[in-house]
Amino acid sequence: MPDTRLSIRIDLKSGDRIGPGKIALLEPIRETGSISAAARHLGMSYRRAWLLVEEVNEALEERAVAAATGGRQGGGAVLTRPGERIVDLYRSIETTARASAREPFRAVGRLARKDKKGRA
Amino acid sequence: MPDTRLSIRIDLKSGDRIGPGKIALLEPIRETGSISAAARHLGMSYRRAWLLVEEVNEALEERAVAAATGGRQGGGAVLTRPGERIVDLYRSIETTARASAREPFRAVGRLARKDKKGRA
Repeated sequence: MPDTRLSIRIDLKSGDRIGPGKIALLEPIRETGSISAAARHLGMSYRRAWLLVEEVNEALEERAVAAATGGRQGGGAVLTRPGERIVDLYRSIETTARASAREPFRAVGRLARKDKKGRA
Repeated sequence: MPDTRLSIRIDLKSGDRIGPGKIALLEPIRETGSISAAARHLGMSYRRAWLLVEEVNEALEERAVAAATGGRQGGGAVLTRPGERIVDLYRSIETTARASAREPFRAVGRLARKDKKGRA
């Protein structure tokens, strides 16, 4: 059973949102250079991954994921500089938030139900 | 257009989640003493509000919202002590997270698209 976790979500002025799901997709795109490989890694359909990438691209002034020309696979996907920045900033905010709110966060864990199915 | 905002979500060990939507519902229940009044306040169906309340109740060791007996309306809803605590802790974590991550958070705002419809 995973530990209690704090995630963050950023609601942009445009109404677009950047949350854990989109960042968790951008990271394997950065690693693998491929949207379809990243989607497989997450057990997500290519179509779903592609739509999430488009949402992130739309949310930013410059797109986060661009087509890579050439290369072994004759064109995959790369994170642009703003794409790299968004991933790094998001993880930095998350780390800072987790570190700063450790005490009240533990208190939430103590109020949580201990088992999964529990209460009759 | 609302400002860029940081929200938090807590993923509990049980798999349950406590995020901005549920907390935003508990608060008007605390104010109004009524799930249906809180639902109206949020423009949410009673059924949807009731399901969210049940989810929070299930997520905690002790329920967050309980039936209020008696009173003018002959029984509404009240936040229990753990319910009050969850709301306060959530808002406290959120406030701390926002204050601590101000710099990278602003940097995200600068990468965001400036207009709503934008890009052709």
